[in-house]
Amino acid sequence: MLKIDTPLTVPAASAKEYIKNYRLITKDTGRLFLFAGDQKVEHLNSDFSGPDIDAEDQDPEHLFKIASQAEIGAFATQLGLIDKYGRDYKQVPYVVKINSKSNLVSIKDHDPISYSWYSVNDVAKFKKQSRLNIVGVGYTVYLGGEYESEILREAAQIIKDAHQNGLVAIIWMYPRGKNVPNEDDINIIAGGAGVAACLGADFVKVKYPYTGQEATAKEFRKVVAAAGRTKIISVGGSKLSPKELLTNIDQQIHIAHTNGNAIGRNLHQYPLKEAVKLAKAIAGIIYHDYPLAKTLKIMEK
Amino acid sequence: MLKIDTPLTVPAASAKEYIKNYRLITKDTGRLFLFAGDQKVEHLNSDFSGPDIDAEDQDPEHLFKIASQAEIGAFATQLGLIDKYGRDYKQVPYVVKINSKSNLVSIKDHDPISYSWYSVNDVAKFKKQSRLNIVGVGYTVYLGGEYESEILREAAQIIKDAHQNGLVAIIWMYPRGKNVPNEDDINIIAGGAGVAACLGADFVKVKYPYTGQEATAKEFRKVVAAAGRTKIISVGGSKLSPKELLTNIDQQIHIAHTNGNAIGRNLHQYPLKEAVKLAKAIAGIIYHDYPLAKTLKIMEK
Amino acid sequence: MLKIDTPLTVPAASAKEYIKNYRLITKDTGRLFLFAGDQKVEHLNSDFSGPDIDAEDQDPEHLFKIASQAEIGAFATQLGLIDKYGRDYKQVPYVVKINSKSNLVSIKDHDPISYSWYSVNDVAKFKKQSRLNIVGVGYTVYLGGEYESEILREAAQIIKDAHQNGLVAIIWMYPRGKNVPNEDDINIIAGGAGVAACLGADFVKVKYPYTGQEATAKEFRKVVAAAGRTKIISVGGSKLSPKELLTNIDQQIHIAHTNGNAIGRNLHQYPLKEAVKLAKAIAGIIYHDYPLAKTLKIMEK
Amino acid sequence: MLKIDTPLTVPAASAKEYIKNYRLITKDTGRLFLFAGDQKVEHLNSDFSGPDIDAEDQDPEHLFKIASQAEIGAFATQLGLIDKYGRDYKQVPYVVKINSKSNLVSIKDHDPISYSWYSVNDVAKFKKQSRLNIVGVGYTVYLGGEYESEILREAAQIIKDAHQNGLVAIIWMYPRGKNVPNEDDINIIAGGAGVAACLGADFVKVKYPYTGQEATAKEFRKVVAAAGRTKIISVGGSKLSPKELLTNIDQQIHIAHTNGNAIGRNLHQYPLKEAVKLAKAIAGIIYHDYPLAKTLKIMEK
Amino acid sequence: MLKIDTPLTVPAASAKEYIKNYRLITKDTGRLFLFAGDQKVEHLNSDFSGPDIDAEDQDPEHLFKIASQAEIGAFATQLGLIDKYGRDYKQVPYVVKINSKSNLVSIKDHDPISYSWYSVNDVAKFKKQSRLNIVGVGYTVYLGGEYESEILREAAQIIKDAHQNGLVAIIWMYPRGKNVPNEDDINIIAGGAGVAACLGADFVKVKYPYTGQEATAKEFRKVVAAAGRTKIISVGGSKLSPKELLTNIDQQIHIAHTNGNAIGRNLHQYPLKEAVKLAKAIAGIIYHDYPLAKTLKIMEK
Repeated sequence: MLKIDTPLTVPAASAKEYIKNYRLITKDTGRLFLFAGDQKVEHLNSDFSGPDIDAEDQDPEHLFKIASQAEIGAFATQLGLIDKYGRDYKQVPYVVKINSKSNLVSIKDHDPISYSWYSVNDVAKFKKQSRLNIVGVGYTVYLGGEYESEILREAAQIIKDAHQNGLVAIIWMYPRGKNVPNEDDINIIAGGAGVAACLGADFVKVKYPYTGQEATAKEFRKVVAAAGRTKIISVGGSKLSPKELLTNIDQQIHIAHTNGNAIGRNLHQYPLKEAVKLAKAIAGIIYHDYPLAKTLKIMEK
Repeated sequence: MLKIDTPLTVPAASAKEYIKNYRLITKDTGRLFLFAGDQKVEHLNSDFSGPDIDAEDQDPEHLFKIASQAEIGAFATQLGLIDKYGRDYKQVPYVVKINSKSNLVSIKDHDPISYSWYSVNDVAKFKKQSRLNIVGVGYTVYLGGEYESEILREAAQIIKDAHQNGLVAIIWMYPRGKNVPNEDDINIIAGGAGVAACLGADFVKVKYPYTGQEATAKEFRKVVAAAGRTKIISVGGSKLSPKELLTNIDQQIHIAHTNGNAIGRNLHQYPLKEAVKLAKAIAGIIYHDYPLAKTLKIMEK
Repeated sequence: MLKIDTPLTVPAASAKEYIKNYRLITKDTGRLFLFAGDQKVEHLNSDFSGPDIDAEDQDPEHLFKIASQAEIGAFATQLGLIDKYGRDYKQVPYVVKINSKSNLVSIKDHDPISYSWYSVNDVAKFKKQSRLNIVGVGYTVYLGGEYESEILREAAQIIKDAHQNGLVAIIWMYPRGKNVPNEDDINIIAGGAGVAACLGADFVKVKYPYTGQEATAKEFRKVVAAAGRTKIISVGGSKLSPKELLTNIDQQIHIAHTNGNAIGRNLHQYPLKEAVKLAKAIAGIIYHDYPLAKTLKIMEK
Repeated sequence: MLKIDTPLTVPAASAKEYIKNYRLITKDTGRLFLFAGDQKVEHLNSDFSGPDIDAEDQDPEHLFKIASQAEIGAFATQLGLIDKYGRDYKQVPYVVKINSKSNLVSIKDHDPISYSWYSVNDVAKFKKQSRLNIVGVGYTVYLGGEYESEILREAAQIIKDAHQNGLVAIIWMYPRGKNVPNEDDINIIAGGAGVAACLGADFVKVKYPYTGQEATAKEFRKVVAAAGRTKIISVGGSKLSPKELLTNIDQQIHIAHTNGNAIGRNLHQYPLKEAVKLAKAIAGIIYHDYPLAKTLKIMEK
Repeated sequence: MLKIDTPLTVPAASAKEYIKNYRLITKDTGRLFLFAGDQKVEHLNSDFSGPDIDAEDQDPEHLFKIASQAEIGAFATQLGLIDKYGRDYKQVPYVVKINSKSNLVSIKDHDPISYSWYSVNDVAKFKKQSRLNIVGVGYTVYLGGEYESEILREAAQIIKDAHQNGLVAIIWMYPRGKNVPNEDDINIIAGGAGVAACLGADFVKVKYPYTGQEATAKEFRKVVAAAGRTKIISVGGSKLSPKELLTNIDQQIHIAHTNGNAIGRNLHQYPLKEAVKLAKAIAGIIYHDYPLAKTLKIMEK
């Protein structure tokens, strides 16, 4: 069984809860397969309706069906959706995505800012009231803009408060804006990962400059190193073929030594059955160290 | 009797109140006919005095007379008016419109912002003190501007607090500002509806790009889908002939499958008697599934 | 005796106090003669020293002498002056003007903003501590600028809190700034009056586009109508001859059907004796329905 | 013994403390000789090191030595210095200068703003904890800029809170910024003094447009009049010869009828002995109504 | 044993704790050797990976290894790192660096602002909960920009709160931004040091305009004088050769009479063994008054 050193901001009274949550979402591997479903705000309707998107995805409940049937570690989404569907999907481990913004405001015109919608205490109260299995909170940090200082303060407080309540704290870390010429610069990504470590995040979701090349994966070790005991999970990004996606994840986990992935569109834009199958393949890499070939075979079934 | 799953942010102690309110305003149909009377701030005096507006509309009490005599689900207005007239109109189900701004500031010069005037706890306290039949709160969200993040945070808190108090939460959702080139784009309207769902709204009032065409109504199903368990109510918009209005509502309800309407100017710019008659026709569609022809006949009386 | 329906935001425990205050300042007529003395901040020294201004006006105590000797309904000024002079003028009914700004910042450069200096609870505490006869609070709203939303929120809270404490709430309502091309547009003034009604104000002080013409007074009825149960009091404006002023007030009260006036410079720029005499004439119109001729005779004495 | 009418914002429980403080700093004359020593922030190092400045002034303790040995009414400085030196200078009556800003930001580029560093409650708590003789608080108001409204709100709260705690409230009042073309305009200075009166300040420190001319001093009576029961103390300004300074103060007190002075650089830029002697001369005018000639003789010793 | 006068903002109940912390970090010399390790946010990854940086530095744990093995006074870093590594490095005296910002936003475009991530009460609670040896807090002040006033207020509160809790308060003081043409101007540095004194800081970390010239060190006495009883510690700055660094420190301590140094990159960019050796040499100067030659010999071993 994975040995878990609870962070020191987790008080003794919440340690058991924290360890239970950590074990659950990492399935005792220390790695996390996060189903990230916050795009209804972040990308509005464009991720849910279009030529390459299955019609099932138009209904928000599609997300909950995937979350309940697929072999994921946790499902991250806004509290408002959990409010309406949670009653029917009680078994899902939820990460409450505590802030979100739309994509209408151009980053060129206005540095990004996305205040938390709820305090962690709101979430903890909701957890108690709803008896749902809420295991953590998620918060997006935009580094490098006019609001950076406000954002870092909010992030630091949220992580501390999450730990106080025994919740796992996950940071979406995006150096972004007119001061960040190249979001794909691995040194910048490593810098962001280091900031997440200084904030005390348990996991940090970072961009992976996709190439499918082993060289990239090797270079990416720098990001993993910079984060220290804060664990790196890579974003899935825009839609890839299952083979491309799985190859990518395999390289991330086994070459770059990241600790998991956050997959959104690459799951929910498929019909439920396909999504569940793909999740099985992804979980194979993340949780079971399946070789790539074995996961590709899952997809062929 | 309509089965109502209370949202999970409604605590057990408030569930009965929430269900009572929900049943009352939807008359147990799940649909809502909202009399929206917040224009004295939103449009200042221009909706209440002019060549095509009945003189009765100059007196704010006109709104309360309509609200008390017409077959509406609820009457939404600012607390200050309720403060002065509520004593004489105790039977009206009120939705407190918790924020409002004037139309003096041009959206081109300044992204829209409209802070809530009261906390939901203020409203709950007022309800208790006044013994009025306050059933919900209304809040306008402007998506896509400089203040979006502040607005979303305020909306999320208000919805949560409304539910804590057993009140129905209704969002006026307007993607608006210099970053929103076309407010009539159905994909953008669907995006806004999805955001309301992520916020946990019970009803979301959205723009309906009026054409009177069945094709539009069919395309609008996308908006209804995007909102999931959050129910869509369309705005009435600027003044139409009763026939145009009723045709529109009929298509919205029976083709687009929306769950109601919010009508303001199309009621209160008429003299009381006319307004009550028109409301009867509208309620016929929304609450009784009357065929369009039958509602048109009501108007002929 | 005037029947007073207390607003619903006045709780039962404060109703008696509210009615007492309302009766006192309206002398049971429903009309208000407000001595508005907040110009030491709003206009700095220019209203108190100059060729047409009596030397007595240089001393702030002049305001208190008028307030205590003239037949006014209430005296509105900043709490700091009351702090220093109230001990010697205990019989005056005070309205605490809760916000004020200087005239140094040009409206063209910067939209107007004037935060409240005190909470209503501060005022209520001061009332209890000082045992002064504080009957209400006054707050200026600037409509149409960048800060409109903050201002409306503050106004709504102040009115609610005033009522909670049994105090009468008076709004100074000024649509103003670069988005308001014509402050004298009666439709805009009516719009502002309607906003005050939606905020729950008891009285709203609005600009009166002075002409001395009956036609203007008739058109101004639109403003009175728009405010509904919120009562209109017109500003006195810059200094007029007593005859002009009284004619104006007479037309406002008896043709436009406003409910009183707020007079500042037109009182305090006179020596005490003159001010008291002029106030007697004004009170004649407002409180006693004297015909204009009779009030002009008062001035001749 | 001077009769002191405590302001009405001073509660009964604090009246004795207020009167004690007021008597102490005015030495029962109603006039105040304030040693103003907040320049280490306001002017950084330029007031403490330079060709015409004595080397003793480089050490912050120099200020405390003067404060403890010279015949001043009170010493105003930042709490951080009092924190470090107060233990050795317990007998000094301290005014805590509650806000300060550096002179690095040009007024032309950015309207001045200087938030209070501490609440008055912080100061009151510190007074109790340290057992120092803290007699009042000082706060700088910048009138006429973008932040005026925030500043006035903060000033009003600080004065009220000072009085609640029995502390004397002193305002540094500076109409300043791009909207104030001439800071030396006596009408503007009078306006600022009137604002301080409306805020309820006990003393207001204002600029004195130095000329050494009796005509100026006579015109300055307008400022004294505008402030009413709030007492005017003039700033010392940049370094003058002792004779110029004393002549100036003599005219201010005996012609303009101000109630004291605030002297900073004109004391601490001298060596301790000289400073103490000059202070004796100044105190001679302010507290003992010495004729100018007598004070000049003190300097000759 | 060093006599320590606790600042007056340290209450009696916290005096023992304050003195214990002060003695510990100054090793009873009154001087401080601070290992400053906040660069993972301030400089992102560029201080931890590069041609002249040892590979050990990529792992955040490297900082903790140095902190636990080198003869430092205290280790300053963000709470998030302490959260993850503190359990394994319990013996280290920690200074929680309470604010931090990245270097992505150009000072030319945007005046610097860096809000505190935590309140001092958060830190005090964490200390109690974690039982770590937290001895102080650190906070960066940027003087001279648009946010100066907010920053000074936050700094003043943090220092006061630190003292309330018996913690040593250390200010990183940087006059910076478009209004500060020359950060190396010793008069400006002295001004900043004086501001720290007015804030009540115990130590202030300031820039030292490195030259290795005795003349500079002599001129720097002005900075030490301006800070009075607040002690000056100089920054180490960018990487120097050990000889240059030690010469510099020697001149600072023995000529300029500063009270210590804050060294970051000049320690952690070396492998652990080298860093420990260099720290021994630095501590030799700061804590033991070793002559420079003796410390250079340490490096030769």
